[in-house]
Amino acid sequence: MTEEHLHVRKGAAASHDGMTAPPRKTFRKKTAAPPDLNAIADGVVNGSVKELAKAITFIESNAASHYNYGQDLLQKLLPHTGKAIRIGITGVPGAGKSTFIESFGMMLCDAGYRVAVLAIDPSSSISGGSILGDKTRMERLAKHPNAFIRPSPSGGTLGGVHRKTRETLALCESAGFDVILIETVGVGQSEFIVRSMVDFFMLLTLTGAGDELQGMKKGIMELADAIVVNKADGANKPLAEKTKREYNQILHFLQPATKGWQSKAYTCSALKNEGMESIWSVIEEFRETAEKSGVLQERRRSQTREWLHTLIMEQLQNHFYRHPYVKEQIGRLEQGAMDGTITPSQAAEQLFKHVYGQD
Amino acid sequence: MTEEHLHVRKGAAASHDGMTAPPRKTFRKKTAAPPDLNAIADGVVNGSVKELAKAITFIESNAASHYNYGQDLLQKLLPHTGKAIRIGITGVPGAGKSTFIESFGMMLCDAGYRVAVLAIDPSSSISGGSILGDKTRMERLAKHPNAFIRPSPSGGTLGGVHRKTRETLALCESAGFDVILIETVGVGQSEFIVRSMVDFFMLLTLTGAGDELQGMKKGIMELADAIVVNKADGANKPLAEKTKREYNQILHFLQPATKGWQSKAYTCSALKNEGMESIWSVIEEFRETAEKSGVLQERRRSQTREWLHTLIMEQLQNHFYRHPYVKEQIGRLEQGAMDGTITPSQAAEQLFKHVYGQD
Repeated sequence: MTEEHLHVRKGAAASHDGMTAPPRKTFRKKTAAPPDLNAIADGVVNGSVKELAKAITFIESNAASHYNYGQDLLQKLLPHTGKAIRIGITGVPGAGKSTFIESFGMMLCDAGYRVAVLAIDPSSSISGGSILGDKTRMERLAKHPNAFIRPSPSGGTLGGVHRKTRETLALCESAGFDVILIETVGVGQSEFIVRSMVDFFMLLTLTGAGDELQGMKKGIMELADAIVVNKADGANKPLAEKTKREYNQILHFLQPATKGWQSKAYTCSALKNEGMESIWSVIEEFRETAEKSGVLQERRRSQTREWLHTLIMEQLQNHFYRHPYVKEQIGRLEQGAMDGTITPSQAAEQLFKHVYGQD
Repeated sequence: MTEEHLHVRKGAAASHDGMTAPPRKTFRKKTAAPPDLNAIADGVVNGSVKELAKAITFIESNAASHYNYGQDLLQKLLPHTGKAIRIGITGVPGAGKSTFIESFGMMLCDAGYRVAVLAIDPSSSISGGSILGDKTRMERLAKHPNAFIRPSPSGGTLGGVHRKTRETLALCESAGFDVILIETVGVGQSEFIVRSMVDFFMLLTLTGAGDELQGMKKGIMELADAIVVNKADGANKPLAEKTKREYNQILHFLQPATKGWQSKAYTCSALKNEGMESIWSVIEEFRETAEKSGVLQERRRSQTREWLHTLIMEQLQNHFYRHPYVKEQIGRLEQGAMDGTITPSQAAEQLFKHVYGQD
């Protein structure tokens, strides 16, 4: 893997993240002939990390022509997707996500699996840079020939980050990666976004369930196919076991995240490399169970359908809220509604009349 | 209260639920001069249930002119809203919601409070009739001069039912009702809708927390400001107390539904009229706490702001999904995305190009 994988592309003024219509023209000189998309696609299918990185760069690019190349490539590669197990990982800051992914990923890579690590970090939309997927956080894994680490795409809206990660996941699958790990820091709606694109969702946590849970986002536990209490080593081990039991008690009462699968809590020590094999066994058992019952296939189909409607909704909102009249009036109308001088229905109708010229 | 309150208006072919532009013409003969909206508004403010029912009928009507009368009335009445305590009640079928509301409502009415009972029943969108708010379910309460019972509005989309209930709530407040109870059967997203329009949200349940919870919708417990275990009478009482303790254990770990308020579990017997006063004390304490901290005022303001954006989103979706091209193509594109012959991004763009004529 070369340094360019981690290069953060700064978008042009008019960003294209799939949320708005591509600009008709780009004001940059044509520097080269169009890329040979068939050759790139062939390279990806044959497992070339170099061609994969090229394809991802198109998917992540904010230039309209690149965006179109990316979509064409993706369409060519779609028939080769679907074979990996997609695993989402979230957890509070300090839970040890990087250490876990490095330890877990190394075990899989050493066993011969090819592992791709992606990330969704909504804060990268704001800062323009990503704190996740940094190779320095996972130095050993980054050097492993079976591993591919890609930081969270940056720039554009959260919807853009969402689309780019989802499409990168498909590209990695078509390149023959067996395991896709998607990490998130859990800012904003990012856990729900990751849950909507993975088969198995894991919550990494620490001892002290009570305190942890109090700070936990609402509904997160109910998304998890497994809760893993990390740092179960040394003097902390008995406490971690106690925390595990507390989580199991709560999980027992909650609806399962996946039909036919009882989510449970486990302990591990990513630092000491303990418990990694048993977590992988749990995931393998999950896959077997969910494939047999058809729940996995159904989940993937409905995830794709929902993904289409999410894209539509995001585009609709962008189209509406970026309209000059809406941008100018929305604050005043919100205020009016909150102050009780206009009904929300009237406020909405006023905006619609101007944007869509109805009535 | 007269029988007309329960009359379910059957909409014309082109229904107007605030989700689409009002039809330009209605094909019914003009039967009367336009209503005197100022007189109706004055009547409502003076507490006339007859004028209130008239106003609600406009709000619920599917005719464009009536819809506009309703909005004008609502705007006139908005300054008189905001004084009631808004309580949402949900629970599994069999939990005894009707009995609870009758018992609780009677206690309040006898104490001199004026109580309005509304309902959100999404199934009424499908069946055209409502199973909630039926006077026969709350015979004693329906006859009390301090009570006003209105069934779930029917016809149109869930968005329409949502808007109508929300606006009816405002009308009831302007008519001087002190307590608004909004009941829901918990179909679809209805608990989330009710939560988005009330101050205090209560989950009514039964003994056997484990089993109950397994069948409980995800995230519902985290919406509740109180969980009330009903039917705590006779031989069932010790079991109900045990269930209460189990709920309290879980609630302790969950994030509070309202900042600064620890949600707890309680027992009651609606049938035996036991525990009603203590539940009312809890709600009064909640109101005092949340008003003092400003959380209540902030909740109401943000509910109004979110309500405006919910209306916008619903209208955007209706505008898009009712477009003839979208209606014709969406099924094929969904299938293509699920089968992997087209990327969801391409499918979304194809629809957008046709609807909004973008590049």
